[in-house]
Amino acid sequence: MSQRIEDLFKIKYPIVQAGMIWNSGWRLASASSNAGILGLLGAGSMYPEVLREHIRKCKKATSEPFGVNVPMLYPNIEDIMSIIVEEDVRIVFTSAGNPKTWTTWLKDKGITVVHVVSSVKFALKAQEAGVDAIVAEGFEAGGHNGRDETTTFTLIPMVKEHIDIPLIAAGGIANGKGMLAAMVLGADGVQIGSRFVASEESSSHIAFKQKVVDAKEGDTILTLKELAPVRLIKNNFYDEIVELYKKGPTVEELKNLLGRARAKRGMFEGDLEDGELEIGQVAGLIHDIQPVSQIVDNILREFEEAKQAIRKL
Amino acid sequence: MSQRIEDLFKIKYPIVQAGMIWNSGWRLASASSNAGILGLLGAGSMYPEVLREHIRKCKKATSEPFGVNVPMLYPNIEDIMSIIVEEDVRIVFTSAGNPKTWTTWLKDKGITVVHVVSSVKFALKAQEAGVDAIVAEGFEAGGHNGRDETTTFTLIPMVKEHIDIPLIAAGGIANGKGMLAAMVLGADGVQIGSRFVASEESSSHIAFKQKVVDAKEGDTILTLKELAPVRLIKNNFYDEIVELYKKGPTVEELKNLLGRARAKRGMFEGDLEDGELEIGQVAGLIHDIQPVSQIVDNILREFEEAKQAIRKL
Repeated sequence: MSQRIEDLFKIKYPIVQAGMIWNSGWRLASASSNAGILGLLGAGSMYPEVLREHIRKCKKATSEPFGVNVPMLYPNIEDIMSIIVEEDVRIVFTSAGNPKTWTTWLKDKGITVVHVVSSVKFALKAQEAGVDAIVAEGFEAGGHNGRDETTTFTLIPMVKEHIDIPLIAAGGIANGKGMLAAMVLGADGVQIGSRFVASEESSSHIAFKQKVVDAKEGDTILTLKELAPVRLIKNNFYDEIVELYKKGPTVEELKNLLGRARAKRGMFEGDLEDGELEIGQVAGLIHDIQPVSQIVDNILREFEEAKQAIRKL
Repeated sequence: MSQRIEDLFKIKYPIVQAGMIWNSGWRLASASSNAGILGLLGAGSMYPEVLREHIRKCKKATSEPFGVNVPMLYPNIEDIMSIIVEEDVRIVFTSAGNPKTWTTWLKDKGITVVHVVSSVKFALKAQEAGVDAIVAEGFEAGGHNGRDETTTFTLIPMVKEHIDIPLIAAGGIANGKGMLAAMVLGADGVQIGSRFVASEESSSHIAFKQKVVDAKEGDTILTLKELAPVRLIKNNFYDEIVELYKKGPTVEELKNLLGRARAKRGMFEGDLEDGELEIGQVAGLIHDIQPVSQIVDNILREFEEAKQAIRKL
């Protein structure tokens, strides 16, 4: 197995802390980078000047590499990208859009670019666009997700068959066994999201963190497929979605139900019933809120133990 | 890691060839058993007397253990179960129903019983019903599937946290890397379906086998969730399903569209456009039709290679 992810980002362990809207500000990203993995700020929930502040605070809190995740479906992308360059961020993860739009512009400025995909088709497009690595994210992942519904277990080896650049697996990974399984399937490293929502340093509301800890198998669902498919915890808001679907709604009616700021309301403000609670299926394997350093230590220990178990096979 | 699956079925390798309607008759099951894995007849597509014939032919073709998969949603279950006992089949996999219905009856006759589940809740129910092992099958699996949409990557460790009896992973596994990854995640063995559809010995129509070989990432979908959710290859029949869904159909209208014998028409008779073509997402990793012995050899070789790669980590 390679050191490609470690070398690409200049980090100690091949783990990326996912950039997640409303959950990953400077505290989480800097704690992750200080723990030897790659921390990411989630720009999707930040006004441009808020992002600037988080970048500056993150730089003060860590001397290790960190990056910014930019979901291209949100507004103000030009301003976001300008601030990333002005503030000298060296690593950008783009998602939810065409990898051709920003890759060359960013790479011309010496920035390492990674694109998040959920299909072989977009993995090939991203490689062609010149990205430095790909995150391939399976159906089980939380938040916005692809239309093909391809799971991590099949997506990783299928993408691996088609691309040569470093491959980061995402979706369903929260511990060292998941990390090893993803690498067996062909990944060079892993991106972990949900596990870091339930960390002390995430900006997630404490009620949401506890909801993630309490979530069990079957509690999440991929829905709103006519808008941008999103995986969330079933709650009163989801019940309303189900009711609306029974009427054969238009896209406009779905948008109206979603409204504005549902994600903020759920994940940042802790409205567990009427907010949007984005999390992965792997929430069912997360049983406590821990500091990032502890989470990373546990993952690495489990990873070593899982390797030892394989050696005995 | 354990030898629990090998010991339970008295087989050489911890691999089960899935019992699949219209695809797994005596030729496939006996070839699998002769290759050192557990072959299964798929009773779901057989009239009782046809099953009897397949059991007898299978016994003539192999002296190794084999079993029968009985999806409990099909008719004639009483007759099927009587024939299984009369013909002295020693291993039964039940699926698509309540594990309490038949487990005690079968176990009283000395038969080893395995139940297929797709959620933690049903894994617990099956263990409580006294089954000898569980198959936990992820969302990516072909054919009939669960409502929770939990993927193999997250289902296996979640089930493992809750049950003590032997655990067989299914869904998304077609090669040795998948087998090792499933075991890293907590499985004692694996059940493989799609890969054996594209075998020389399966009773699948040659046109369907070739369709599986040609399938790519994104070509399958889980649909008809209001009836029994089923994963199939998108074709003209699926386009008709999509059209019907736009009208907000009743369950009755969906049943009418499905009609009778769609699965036979697609998989056994080779009608690629209007038949039901049940296969897993992993079809995108299957690139040839091979004899079962070759398929098993390849899986075992890849499994060893993947273990060696881990040893170097």
